[in-house]
Amino acid sequence: MNNKIKKKLVKNWFKDLQDLICYQIEEIENYSTSFKNKIWNRDKLKDQGGGEYRILENGKVFDKVGVNFSEVYGKFSKEFRDQVPGAKKNPNFWASGISVVMHMKNPNVPAMHFNTRFISTSQSWFGGGIDVTPCLVDNKLKFWFHSELKKCCDRHNKKYYKKYKKWCDNYFYLPHRNEPRGIGGIFFDYKKDSWEKDFAFVRDVGLTFKNIFYSIIMKKNKIKWSKSDKEIQYLKRGRYVEFNLLYDRGTKFGLKTGGNSDAILMSLPPSAKWK
Amino acid sequence: MNNKIKKKLVKNWFKDLQDLICYQIEEIENYSTSFKNKIWNRDKLKDQGGGEYRILENGKVFDKVGVNFSEVYGKFSKEFRDQVPGAKKNPNFWASGISVVMHMKNPNVPAMHFNTRFISTSQSWFGGGIDVTPCLVDNKLKFWFHSELKKCCDRHNKKYYKKYKKWCDNYFYLPHRNEPRGIGGIFFDYKKDSWEKDFAFVRDVGLTFKNIFYSIIMKKNKIKWSKSDKEIQYLKRGRYVEFNLLYDRGTKFGLKTGGNSDAILMSLPPSAKWK
Repeated sequence: MNNKIKKKLVKNWFKDLQDLICYQIEEIENYSTSFKNKIWNRDKLKDQGGGEYRILENGKVFDKVGVNFSEVYGKFSKEFRDQVPGAKKNPNFWASGISVVMHMKNPNVPAMHFNTRFISTSQSWFGGGIDVTPCLVDNKLKFWFHSELKKCCDRHNKKYYKKYKKWCDNYFYLPHRNEPRGIGGIFFDYKKDSWEKDFAFVRDVGLTFKNIFYSIIMKKNKIKWSKSDKEIQYLKRGRYVEFNLLYDRGTKFGLKTGGNSDAILMSLPPSAKWK
Repeated sequence: MNNKIKKKLVKNWFKDLQDLICYQIEEIENYSTSFKNKIWNRDKLKDQGGGEYRILENGKVFDKVGVNFSEVYGKFSKEFRDQVPGAKKNPNFWASGISVVMHMKNPNVPAMHFNTRFISTSQSWFGGGIDVTPCLVDNKLKFWFHSELKKCCDRHNKKYYKKYKKWCDNYFYLPHRNEPRGIGGIFFDYKKDSWEKDFAFVRDVGLTFKNIFYSIIMKKNKIKWSKSDKEIQYLKRGRYVEFNLLYDRGTKFGLKTGGNSDAILMSLPPSAKWK
């Protein structure tokens, strides 16, 4: 299959998934509120792609959820050429992705994050992952969440889960705090085993995320919470902010490639506290 | 004067200034609340210095204020040796400093920041600055603040104010937002014109900060504020967090040299919001 068709298929899937996820969220909110969307372009004069971010705030279930689609292209700056595989040879790039961050009203429901992307330079690869960040301990939920991810991974390759779980644990870690961000999940990057198989896996990860967040919300959103639970959530969100601004590669990549800062920083919680 | 005596004099000044500033703040709070302090060491086994940070929260005037003193020494990691003047030749370093960040209850009073430091490798130099971040516009205050800084600078060298104001404007800037952090101030680094004169300037900057924050609070803290003013303050604090975690060199330096993360991140506001 030629590269142009691959890009089109991937982009269309990410767009469709954005719709699917947004519909699911509005259903969970019982259609009492809806997403606001914003379309943005990387450059005002030259066509260098852009994206659409959708945001829902102050829902009954979600404090803030952002669902971001982007398709960007152009030339990498000199600074980036050494850092991105295949960009040294040729600075042209194309990248498309979807990312979702959910900050929940009920502190019993973890913050949830999902992202998949396809990047094309003189090489091309997929990346992505799912991870959740509870602020209150629930080992049963942790076990269930990881078993769902393992099932998804096992459908494609029996080696994926172990490898991608470890990658996730290493990535979502705050060294200055000696703390993991949450309870992990799966994380993968530079994935270029076979385009067809990789794309099938990426689609499955997206649908698995949709099922996981729905199930977690159904399980946990009924549980009552106190003011002190909410305070714990605000402090945990402070850690989330620290991770995203100090370490997150997607944030750095986006800000340095002239991405839309509102879309990139949409992942930040509506409010956070520090002691 | 030998280097050992210089270090001792500088360190003692920073410690005394920490006391002076903390007394001033407790006086402003009418002694109804007081600082909590924590002494920390860089390493548990080897003596590599440490510091003392003091924090006052939930006051009548201050939402959160941190006053941090540190004296650290050791060897720079390989990563840092290329970045710090004089560290390539010899990785040993000694550094001492004081930093203050004030997040105010009344949104009419700007957030205020001050820092001075002395760093010694095979070279040695001073750095520091004062800057303020209002969330509500007050051009009269801005004019007064800058004229006070100019007076302080002019006492030492007529060229300082213009140079250090520009440096401050360039440094406290959020490129991804196309926004300055606040209304500027003065910022200087790698200052090694004459140790005696530089140290006199650094002491004056410290005392000027003490006068400035006292005067600003006396001027502005009486003004009534609304809930929507407070919301503007929370959003402005979000920008403050973005700057500190994405760009602030002191934060990066501290976290990468194994500084105490609570002391370093003490600069973060008690609470922040993002839209």
